[in-house]
Amino acid sequence: MADIKLDKISTKAPKNFEKEKVKAELPAIYQELDALQNILYAQSKYAVLIVLQGMDASGKDGLIKNVFSTVNPQGIMVQSYKVPTAEELSHDFLWRIHKYAPAKGMIQVFNRSHYEDILVTRVHKMIDDATAAKRMKAINDFESLLTTHNNTVILKFYLHVSQEEQHTRLEERIRDKTKQWKYNEQDFKEAALRKEYFKAYGDCFKHCNKIKWVIVPSDQNWYKEYLVATTLRDVLKKLNMQYPGMKK
Amino acid sequence: MADIKLDKISTKAPKNFEKEKVKAELPAIYQELDALQNILYAQSKYAVLIVLQGMDASGKDGLIKNVFSTVNPQGIMVQSYKVPTAEELSHDFLWRIHKYAPAKGMIQVFNRSHYEDILVTRVHKMIDDATAAKRMKAINDFESLLTTHNNTVILKFYLHVSQEEQHTRLEERIRDKTKQWKYNEQDFKEAALRKEYFKAYGDCFKHCNKIKWVIVPSDQNWYKEYLVATTLRDVLKKLNMQYPGMKK
Repeated sequence: MADIKLDKISTKAPKNFEKEKVKAELPAIYQELDALQNILYAQSKYAVLIVLQGMDASGKDGLIKNVFSTVNPQGIMVQSYKVPTAEELSHDFLWRIHKYAPAKGMIQVFNRSHYEDILVTRVHKMIDDATAAKRMKAINDFESLLTTHNNTVILKFYLHVSQEEQHTRLEERIRDKTKQWKYNEQDFKEAALRKEYFKAYGDCFKHCNKIKWVIVPSDQNWYKEYLVATTLRDVLKKLNMQYPGMKK
Repeated sequence: MADIKLDKISTKAPKNFEKEKVKAELPAIYQELDALQNILYAQSKYAVLIVLQGMDASGKDGLIKNVFSTVNPQGIMVQSYKVPTAEELSHDFLWRIHKYAPAKGMIQVFNRSHYEDILVTRVHKMIDDATAAKRMKAINDFESLLTTHNNTVILKFYLHVSQEEQHTRLEERIRDKTKQWKYNEQDFKEAALRKEYFKAYGDCFKHCNKIKWVIVPSDQNWYKEYLVATTLRDVLKKLNMQYPGMKK
């Protein structure tokens, strides 16, 4: 595929989308998602893995809350990946990921993921390019294992925010007492590495794109939520799932 | 405490509760729960464990869907306990339970639980009374470990349905194509063991009641959901949780 250059891609909703109209559509979309998830769980034929990536304050947490709290919590699990623990580091980088691969019938959301092992690690020069290339190969093999051997549908979303919007949100974390716990003094330093992150993401999109990335313009939460919810709904619809009937 | 005799306890909403009034109150209660869960997660001081027990078709799944899909899926996990696997059976009966004890900041829901090890196992005479007594002691010790050493608030709910309502729901599982996958031909046989189950539950309530059981009249879903949601809300409120402010 053609290279994806994040600095050339808009972080805003396309012009033909209007906030009020989209917001009015959301409840019906969530109802569809809820119904589809119910069949997914009942049939237990397919697994769904949703990978969320994006810089700090790109709105991953809000997305999870608003889009995924609409489905049955019994059928969805969220795993947040932070700095690896000592135990995790004493294994290959996919060990902690594989553990939370979704079972058939389940939707698993990764809040950050195995991609951090070729993102933050590259930006901070913890690994060299040769290691990154080997990891990308391993990631492709791993994703293929899940899709081929456990009917896993993988969706990969990159939440794309502008520098201005990111700064506004980080500053809000300082001002707003209910958000201060999210703030880390490292956040602004990481945000300053935007160019380096875009380069590392560019490589991700280029070399780990057998399962396509969806770039989600995320400056406006309503559009971000709409795009993720409809993408998931459309993918689930295409599976033509059926209630399985009586157990044999 | 005085013995709890399930056959003497109503499975219906108390007379002073009216369906339409209660249903009108629910959205505000769910909003409160959502806000409280947000602080629970942010503060990460307390953990919450919700144990759901009840006979087949007592409405555990529906409760999870309706009450717990109102909170952020990032802060809640649901674990369903089924017949133990070979690996689980090769450990003590609390091994598979401890694995899913909630981390601080999290709400963990158990759909069935360690209590099955003194319920279904006793009804089917897989263990004798002496073993049951030892398990009850172990359960009390385990629950005390979680409360004492990880600030875990434990809520234990028994969903109480009448035999008539249970039969109606099981028959619906046969008729309704979207519910057939839930039906198991064993279900009616288990339902016929009502007296034996009540006896085993009676022992549970008597000997594992340091953390009190809440008996939830569950013939009407609206009341069941109301009682569980308000009980949880009141418990969370009493914790006087606070947003933690900036990380130090």
